[in-house]
Amino acid sequence: MTADYFDTHRGMLDGAIQAMATRSAFSAFTESPSTRVHGDAPPREGKAAFEARLGARFELDQPGITGWVGEEISPYTAQPLGITYPQCDLDAQFEAADRALASWREAGPHARVGLCLEMLDRLSARAFENAHAVMHTAGQSYAMAYAGSGPNALDRGLEALALAWQAQSQVPAEATWQKRFGKQEVVLEKRYRIMPLGPAVVFCCASFPTWNAHPAIFANLATGNPVLVKPHPGCVLPMAITVETLRAVLSDNGFDPNLVQLVVDTTRDPLGKHLVRHPRTAIIDFTGSARFGSWVEANAEGRPCYTETSGVNAVVIESCESLSAMAAAIAGSVCLFSSQMCTSPQNIFIPAGGIRSQSGHHSADEVRKAIVAAIDAITSEPARAASVLGAIQSRATLDLVADWRQRGASAGRVLRGSAPYPHPDFPDAWTASPLVIGLDIARHELYADEAFGPIAFIIEAADADQALAQASSDAREHGAITAFVYSTDEAWLERAELAFARAGAALTENLTGAMPLNFAAAYSDLHVSGLNPAGNASLADWSFVAGRFRIAQARRPSSAA
Amino acid sequence: MTADYFDTHRGMLDGAIQAMATRSAFSAFTESPSTRVHGDAPPREGKAAFEARLGARFELDQPGITGWVGEEISPYTAQPLGITYPQCDLDAQFEAADRALASWREAGPHARVGLCLEMLDRLSARAFENAHAVMHTAGQSYAMAYAGSGPNALDRGLEALALAWQAQSQVPAEATWQKRFGKQEVVLEKRYRIMPLGPAVVFCCASFPTWNAHPAIFANLATGNPVLVKPHPGCVLPMAITVETLRAVLSDNGFDPNLVQLVVDTTRDPLGKHLVRHPRTAIIDFTGSARFGSWVEANAEGRPCYTETSGVNAVVIESCESLSAMAAAIAGSVCLFSSQMCTSPQNIFIPAGGIRSQSGHHSADEVRKAIVAAIDAITSEPARAASVLGAIQSRATLDLVADWRQRGASAGRVLRGSAPYPHPDFPDAWTASPLVIGLDIARHELYADEAFGPIAFIIEAADADQALAQASSDAREHGAITAFVYSTDEAWLERAELAFARAGAALTENLTGAMPLNFAAAYSDLHVSGLNPAGNASLADWSFVAGRFRIAQARRPSSAA
Repeated sequence: MTADYFDTHRGMLDGAIQAMATRSAFSAFTESPSTRVHGDAPPREGKAAFEARLGARFELDQPGITGWVGEEISPYTAQPLGITYPQCDLDAQFEAADRALASWREAGPHARVGLCLEMLDRLSARAFENAHAVMHTAGQSYAMAYAGSGPNALDRGLEALALAWQAQSQVPAEATWQKRFGKQEVVLEKRYRIMPLGPAVVFCCASFPTWNAHPAIFANLATGNPVLVKPHPGCVLPMAITVETLRAVLSDNGFDPNLVQLVVDTTRDPLGKHLVRHPRTAIIDFTGSARFGSWVEANAEGRPCYTETSGVNAVVIESCESLSAMAAAIAGSVCLFSSQMCTSPQNIFIPAGGIRSQSGHHSADEVRKAIVAAIDAITSEPARAASVLGAIQSRATLDLVADWRQRGASAGRVLRGSAPYPHPDFPDAWTASPLVIGLDIARHELYADEAFGPIAFIIEAADADQALAQASSDAREHGAITAFVYSTDEAWLERAELAFARAGAALTENLTGAMPLNFAAAYSDLHVSGLNPAGNASLADWSFVAGRFRIAQARRPSSAA
Repeated sequence: MTADYFDTHRGMLDGAIQAMATRSAFSAFTESPSTRVHGDAPPREGKAAFEARLGARFELDQPGITGWVGEEISPYTAQPLGITYPQCDLDAQFEAADRALASWREAGPHARVGLCLEMLDRLSARAFENAHAVMHTAGQSYAMAYAGSGPNALDRGLEALALAWQAQSQVPAEATWQKRFGKQEVVLEKRYRIMPLGPAVVFCCASFPTWNAHPAIFANLATGNPVLVKPHPGCVLPMAITVETLRAVLSDNGFDPNLVQLVVDTTRDPLGKHLVRHPRTAIIDFTGSARFGSWVEANAEGRPCYTETSGVNAVVIESCESLSAMAAAIAGSVCLFSSQMCTSPQNIFIPAGGIRSQSGHHSADEVRKAIVAAIDAITSEPARAASVLGAIQSRATLDLVADWRQRGASAGRVLRGSAPYPHPDFPDAWTASPLVIGLDIARHELYADEAFGPIAFIIEAADADQALAQASSDAREHGAITAFVYSTDEAWLERAELAFARAGAALTENLTGAMPLNFAAAYSDLHVSGLNPAGNASLADWSFVAGRFRIAQARRPSSAA
């Protein structure tokens, strides 16, 4: 029965495989939340489904339930969601995962990938509910919560699934092998089995959970591994919906739902270290802080470990075509979801002597002012601010912004203060426009590490080469996922490409216009490079899937021989 | 210039890729050393080239030479080879490797793979010289030293090269990506670069160095990583010849020869731990003892680490078609290179109640006697013994056999004593026929770990199911690369397949005849499974190459847009 799903959804899979071969644009899902596309009912029903969750238990029939916990607060209403989730005995969860493994392994890649495609389809049908869940936990704007945490994340899941399918197709299930030994023609029938490794623990972050979790979940499930999903305690609901959906698809098709389980913890009693140290944990996928990420990597003990932590993403400006277009692009990316994305730029390097554009020379001060003005243009209009900045996921981030306001004033110059903007729909929303601090390049201790949230540094360097050297060296040493440069000098761009390639930051050059600078496309943009401390979860190449299973083999003389 | 090599040798590469897709038999090289194939000159010249090495310095123009060392002794003549190799300052070697990396990286996959194909071709041209070098260091018979350590090993190298080519072909060098954002059609040109990780250290074993070293060397070189080859001090010459050949190909084509370097140490002052701990070591390939292998794995600290250590390979007999054919097959594999192969069977399990064959019932004693008699048949005829058993690589192995003779007599029953056989060509050769010890299954402490060399245990179990459970559990817990079963019961064979698949031992069923039981074919037979402590160097799937490089990316608006 499950094999039918493979055929039903074959178009999705083929589209993904084709897109990866050319690295061109593709989506199997609908990015727009517009009622013109979906009709009136799905958006309304999705919202209602979300609202029905509030103040209630989120029932999941998991093994060994010991209690119910939940501490989520909506960044839009500043009110607790009041949802509680089952907390389970960890050993019971791992045992259930292990028990579920055998039949899932024996189902084989074709059935598993088929069922995973069906899961994606079923998740897609809940994209509106997911959007509200993401809004009121992560704080994303409605548009981002729909597209970025829905279809875009599902595409990353499909991409991982396509990679996992390719990887498992390396060996045929059966082969005939023939070779002459002396006077004897030996004919062997060979069988190859895909062998999963065991339970995979998927850690999810608070601000953008589905985008990293979907690829990890589907890469693991498709290769036969049970998955324990461990969301951040401040952002559980989107992953609970995901787990609920996947468990339903498994049950509906005769598989053990404990192949996908939710592990819930609290800020006070975190379970992360127990999960990593658990002897049954076979694979670790981690998205989260650099500090805990380092601990996870140090304690992986040879188990496959795919990480995305954090980094200091830089913009280096050498020259540009249009100052205003460039400033608008940088401002847009700094504002986007209030810089709470792992790809958000933080350190904006400019030459002390200013830069040239098509309209002439601009002093460093003019460049700073242009960027600040472009940020003001976004934040000053509440409806636009709401759609771009969204809300701040955690009150701790608001505190961090206040701290940086003080440090910035003493160590450099506050070029732009942070302030709440009035959200048109949610008057109590936690909002904060970007804080912009001017620093000299010598104040490396201030900008070398991530300052999470709406905080940007405009760093003055002697010249663009010094800026490039510092930014790329910081990426290599301290981690970076993205980098951005502006230059009209082709030779300089070539040097920047090599510098950031060696540093392992995905580089975007001279981008202006409607596409957000840090938009990363499934099937085309590799994510974390593995070349610097920001992690190795590339999402988009074989390195993300090849270590999640092994191949076992048996051979015997052909009965036909 | 180097790109021409890709086209010149394209047939080799395509053959390998095609064979991997179907997992059928293929070789790009000539397995027979016969003068009917090669003519008279190449065998003679190869032998002369080997003899010219004896008693002299093996000149390699490596950086930071600090002295000359060499301690090889021929297992055939029991005389020192008298060859010394340059010992170099390790830091100087790593610095030279790092310096060599940039231009090799920039050459790109196409040029690198092309040049690696040329290297294989040049190594193939030295197969006779290599055969004598392997004979007089590893102790292999001439036929095995030619085929197994020459063409078969080169095929495994080509296989790794083909995998590395496939893995690097996942992304095109350039792509165009187009997507609509609001009212704007965004067109980006993307560039993808293959980024090597840095110097790879390749540890080689003493008894079969090229077979594991070639895949590791070519997987690393093809993906842009410099290689430091660290042979066992007792078996340096084959790897020195390899390094010399590869350095010449690099130099001849304008690349830095320090992309491939030899690291020589001595038994008294081993360098292994220094190499693993060296901060510049980016990748580790290890073939060797379980003890040092475990240390290597524990100290890899997240760096890619591909290992083959050792295991306890088992034969489980449930029933068979012909007792004599089965006994001959088992005996042949026990005798092959005196069980000094990582795939050699060690623990032969038989049911206490005996077995059935087409000719009726055979008691456990009859089975034991049939196996011993089949070994006798091979060892009693010196010419046959010489071609099958070869010599014993290390005097330590001869001591181990003597020790086990004592332990076997006290703990079980010596079913067959070990004795030297007179080698027809080399009267002083270190030879030893297999020691066969009968044990009860309860004496697990005796057979749970590897007893290296010509030592086999015939272990009596209550029945075949108990034997299967013990053998597969030992494989899983203590490591195993291969397993062998004999049964005419299809249901039992299915259970055995699953048990050994879960244990991660490559299973061979009911094989008799001319093919050695433990023959492993490039392109078709995966090597170490990664599912048990024997290691993870599969050689034949993406897991062996996907972690050796990363992909860096840059994108910019299309100038055509």
